Amino acid sequence: MADPASLEPSSPRPAAGAAPAAGDPARFDAVVNLCKRRGFVFPSAEIYGGIRSTYDYGPLGAQMLRNVKEAWWQAMVQQRDDVVPIDAAILTNPKVWEASGHLATFTDPLVDCRNCHERWRADQLPDGTCPNCGSHDLTEARPFNLMFKTFVGPVEDEAAVAYLRPETAQGMFVNLVNVVTTMRRRPPFGIAQIGRAFRNEITPGNFVFRTREFEMMELEFFVPPGEAGRWHEYWCGERLAWYRRLGIPGELLRLRQHEPAELSHYSAATTDVEFVFPWGWGELEGIANRTDYDLRAHSEASGVRLEYFDQASGERYLPYVIEPAAGATRTMMAFLLAGYDEDEVGGEPRVVLRLHPRIAPFQVAVLPLSKKEPLAARAREVAGSLRRHWMCDYDDTQSIGRRYRRQDEIGTPYCVTVDFESLEDGAATVRERDSTEQVRLPIEALVGYLEERFEST
Amino acid sequence: MADPASLEPSSPRPAAGAAPAAGDPARFDAVVNLCKRRGFVFPSAEIYGGIRSTYDYGPLGAQMLRNVKEAWWQAMVQQRDDVVPIDAAILTNPKVWEASGHLATFTDPLVDCRNCHERWRADQLPDGTCPNCGSHDLTEARPFNLMFKTFVGPVEDEAAVAYLRPETAQGMFVNLVNVVTTMRRRPPFGIAQIGRAFRNEITPGNFVFRTREFEMMELEFFVPPGEAGRWHEYWCGERLAWYRRLGIPGELLRLRQHEPAELSHYSAATTDVEFVFPWGWGELEGIANRTDYDLRAHSEASGVRLEYFDQASGERYLPYVIEPAAGATRTMMAFLLAGYDEDEVGGEPRVVLRLHPRIAPFQVAVLPLSKKEPLAARAREVAGSLRRHWMCDYDDTQSIGRRYRRQDEIGTPYCVTVDFESLEDGAATVRERDSTEQVRLPIEALVGYLEERFEST
Repeated sequence: MADPASLEPSSPRPAAGAAPAAGDPARFDAVVNLCKRRGFVFPSAEIYGGIRSTYDYGPLGAQMLRNVKEAWWQAMVQQRDDVVPIDAAILTNPKVWEASGHLATFTDPLVDCRNCHERWRADQLPDGTCPNCGSHDLTEARPFNLMFKTFVGPVEDEAAVAYLRPETAQGMFVNLVNVVTTMRRRPPFGIAQIGRAFRNEITPGNFVFRTREFEMMELEFFVPPGEAGRWHEYWCGERLAWYRRLGIPGELLRLRQHEPAELSHYSAATTDVEFVFPWGWGELEGIANRTDYDLRAHSEASGVRLEYFDQASGERYLPYVIEPAAGATRTMMAFLLAGYDEDEVGGEPRVVLRLHPRIAPFQVAVLPLSKKEPLAARAREVAGSLRRHWMCDYDDTQSIGRRYRRQDEIGTPYCVTVDFESLEDGAATVRERDSTEQVRLPIEALVGYLEERFEST
Repeated sequence: MADPASLEPSSPRPAAGAAPAAGDPARFDAVVNLCKRRGFVFPSAEIYGGIRSTYDYGPLGAQMLRNVKEAWWQAMVQQRDDVVPIDAAILTNPKVWEASGHLATFTDPLVDCRNCHERWRADQLPDGTCPNCGSHDLTEARPFNLMFKTFVGPVEDEAAVAYLRPETAQGMFVNLVNVVTTMRRRPPFGIAQIGRAFRNEITPGNFVFRTREFEMMELEFFVPPGEAGRWHEYWCGERLAWYRRLGIPGELLRLRQHEPAELSHYSAATTDVEFVFPWGWGELEGIANRTDYDLRAHSEASGVRLEYFDQASGERYLPYVIEPAAGATRTMMAFLLAGYDEDEVGGEPRVVLRLHPRIAPFQVAVLPLSKKEPLAARAREVAGSLRRHWMCDYDDTQSIGRRYRRQDEIGTPYCVTVDFESLEDGAATVRERDSTEQVRLPIEALVGYLEERFEST
């Protein structure tokens, strides 16, 4: 039995054991397979053959995604005194997208094949030949808007058109005056939002990396124009540190500055937080200096002045915006890829997800050594008391070794085994996932013990 | 100074003070006004004139809505050993809506006026006259589908049609086999989901009560058919108790059984949890016995057997489904209406939101008696330590009396005042919202003190 203090989950690390290295497609395949097998991610409506690049999050994925968002909210809203949240509608007034530039410029160039009538992204046909029939007879490229369109109300005409938001950011811009007035804020301060966004991507793919429907975690941080550079740097540092704190090793992450040619229409400078995916470095989060592009555009289009008036200096200015915009599902995928490991325990191979305890679907599992009473009742009681604090699994089937493996595979940091002796001594065995070390503790000390361990990570 | 034990927030109660009674339209107007003034709810994209019956949740509303969903999740997922969550896509395979019956039957009857070309809901024109021009020359009613339609991919044809989900329930049905297999569950057990849904209502209204985009909290609880009646009763009791536990007085709530004529196409019996709105009793939640309608429909349409095979009895059956389906935004509105109160403090009128501490946007606020250092630094330090546990506001403007009123008005259960004496004695004053009573406590005892109070409510 180990010293309790030693039972802290270690950080995820790339390929500590026999697992394929980070970036190895075999590692990606292993994770995708695990996601399906253990209920993290399912193809959406699979019984109907699914629908391309659309996924439903199963019990473990739903809980993990929730934990990713909660960790972001903690760091970006609750723990800060300079950020407030909002929760805006997905279907809003289309004038928002006209003013933001999305109607005019949020497009991909498409061509039609005149021979077989298939449609393609022009920038993905470098040799100008239809991939379907080989014809060179293609139309000129024309812009295809990536916003999903629908009609609101009973009449399907132009006046009824609305779009599914392609980002949550505009909700923060158009509500700025209401937020500033009701919350009495002044720059530098931020508005945060977590929510779904939709882009009618022509080529979605790479599992949950690029999907048409996705979940964003966005902060719009409003600053005096002269401070934009400094705040951009600040947020790059903060955000990189967030991924590392939650267990992604530094060597799997990097900051990359956009080339001028790849900048979005609103951005003066963008730095991506990137992760080593099997197909190369891929964006987890973009941290953009949106300047006053959006606020200027909305001021002009709406006729409402969005300037901030600084009473101290008597100055009136449009704030600049620094925007750390992260993808929740991509981030979840990065945690899974970074945490995946294969090693040996007692001479047997095992798969283990070395997830940070705050990100793991379950923080703890209770495993009764038998289904019989009164042992089962005692174990359920223990699970009930742990559920007041954390997500707690309960598993009473098959051998204890197999149950440990099942919990290792879904990343549960601690297992609590209730055995026949527990009925006598009121104690249970706690096993830590990464080291597999065990300690025996009084049952009433369990909550405090786990709380301490979770706080120290 | 009061005894600390007495400083517990009282339950919300209808019109304890001078506020208009529950159900009084003046009370409704006061709450809607408060929502706008203090940043709970804004008309969506208000700088563009909004868009009918669409709302954005401001900082306080976003946090309160989050708390409502968190309270539901705690009760319906985390604290139970028989429920697992999922998080399904909003845009899924349209075959789901064909099989569920939504394509054929989720409709309102519409008529066009041949004179002025306006379009109306037939069931809302009892005298057969166009409300716009008074003409009797109306078309026959034809069914109008309430699902929002869009196109996925670059071609707008029938093969590319998709719908925004009008309920989250179908996500649970089509994922049933995947969930049962990966989580090794058997009836009775449930799948829970919180998420946006969309209905192209012809007549939305009553503030956030009926909106085209809304947030649902749904549980699909799968049971052996013979146990459906008993479980339906169980969930009616559980759900009613949930609203009461969170502070809505019993006399503002009721259970109402649907008449046979008002039952949805899938339901054998539905009981609504209703709340006294100013326009009468209105639904917060429907608890339906959906029978095996959905699973049978999806089995037939997909060719995938959705029966459960009970190894013990050798029986194979389609489970029945009991569905408690609640609206998060309606529920938030009910908490606001129930909690709203006006009373007198020290001879001055005040507005106070008697919200349950778990539902209030902020659990605590820190109010430094001065903006000067070192007092401000000490107060910020106190706020920082409270933020580790709760949402904590910080307000250092105007008189302490006005600051108390501001926190009362947004429902903050406790205010912590840091004064010059705090720098000497390391203590602060805690004031409780409902009683306005105050106690002085050591600063290091604050977290424990508040934790205890929140746990006892």
